[in-house]
Amino acid sequence: FQFVCVGGSPNRMRAFAQFMHRELGLAGDGEDVADICAGSDRYAMYRAGPVLSISHGMGIPSISIMLHELIKLLHHAKCRDVTIIRIGTSGGLGIEAGSVVITDTAVDSSFQPRFEQVVLDDVVVRSTELDKDLAEELLACSREIPDFPTLIGHTMCTYDFYEGQGRLDGALCSFSSEKKLEYLRRAYDAGVRNIEMESTAFAALCGLCGLKGESCRLHLL
Amino acid sequence: FQFVCVGGSPNRMRAFAQFMHRELGLAGDGEDVADICAGSDRYAMYRAGPVLSISHGMGIPSISIMLHELIKLLHHAKCRDVTIIRIGTSGGLGIEAGSVVITDTAVDSSFQPRFEQVVLDDVVVRSTELDKDLAEELLACSREIPDFPTLIGHTMCTYDFYEGQGRLDGALCSFSSEKKLEYLRRAYDAGVRNIEMESTAFAALCGLCGLKGESCRLHLL
Repeated sequence: FQFVCVGGSPNRMRAFAQFMHRELGLAGDGEDVADICAGSDRYAMYRAGPVLSISHGMGIPSISIMLHELIKLLHHAKCRDVTIIRIGTSGGLGIEAGSVVITDTAVDSSFQPRFEQVVLDDVVVRSTELDKDLAEELLACSREIPDFPTLIGHTMCTYDFYEGQGRLDGALCSFSSEKKLEYLRRAYDAGVRNIEMESTAFAALCGLCGLKGESCRLHLL
Repeated sequence: FQFVCVGGSPNRMRAFAQFMHRELGLAGDGEDVADICAGSDRYAMYRAGPVLSISHGMGIPSISIMLHELIKLLHHAKCRDVTIIRIGTSGGLGIEAGSVVITDTAVDSSFQPRFEQVVLDDVVVRSTELDKDLAEELLACSREIPDFPTLIGHTMCTYDFYEGQGRLDGALCSFSSEKKLEYLRRAYDAGVRNIEMESTAFAALCGLCGLKGESCRLHLL
């Protein structure tokens, strides 16, 4: 494989494999693409020519398990120079709905470019930079398509969707609307343009294992 | 609903709903039980009489989203005195394969009975005690079944399956077998009998929202 595309939802990654099958003009009916991981329901994996399309569920722990297993698979399959791109949706920050954010650096909930990995009971801090050339290349591709608002920015990664991302409508909420807005404003000022739940672990693990990685996410509303 | 059972895998939670349907002697064919969340592939939800069976994916972020949404659902449905039980598999520590561990307290990777929830950019520490009476009740049930090794103990919850749980066979590993064994021995000495990836968040959120919660997990090998 030359390319691996990963995203949260199994149905979407199936649809993406079917789309790639058509776009690449591959032989046969892409509609009945088989789930290579059909024996398990932890992840779904589809192949369309040189592209592997894999779901990773939600959150850092879930994507971490998948990435460990994917990286071992690529190693045993003797794949070299693999590019991995995370696709999906995210919450945008101060940007137009329908924009795609290409991540230059993933940051944690304190806007720092780091991933704190617990190894046994030690905390190891890892870098979360992504491939800048790949980001520029993807941005250039987006420029060729009309009405395709795309930008490069920082992506904030949280462990929690409700309390961690300033949502007021979870089962519990201990902060005010003002405190939420003040936090999101600070995030914007630090360069954050979208928020999701996997990018720091993705960037750290790809970086350490020599995968050329990038994250592109659509801000829906 | 009186009971909610949650577990990682959608297929298993479907099989569990079918099993409950048969055990409760409900009318109709339990085999074609419908996924109430069929429009989404984030979670699967099945109903068998007074029992709701829901999948939560893997890891704290994934189960947290589900619990927020479940707790809101139970609130709007005016459900009172709901018991929620997490079922599934886990890695056992110094116990016989095939044993079920009923959690008295969920602990983090430093063996502390706490869950550190990031709220915006503050860290809030929450208690992870589970319902002791429910644990004893479940243990009593297990005693009625022959050859059903069951015990009550602490459950350790980690953010990572490979580096966080002392596995040597991930895509990367920076510790020795000795360091791993020394860590697991310390965990055992602190009362930990199994390791998984959701219990601290489960215990904290159930406790805060007044759900009677318990976690029972099977140690496979």
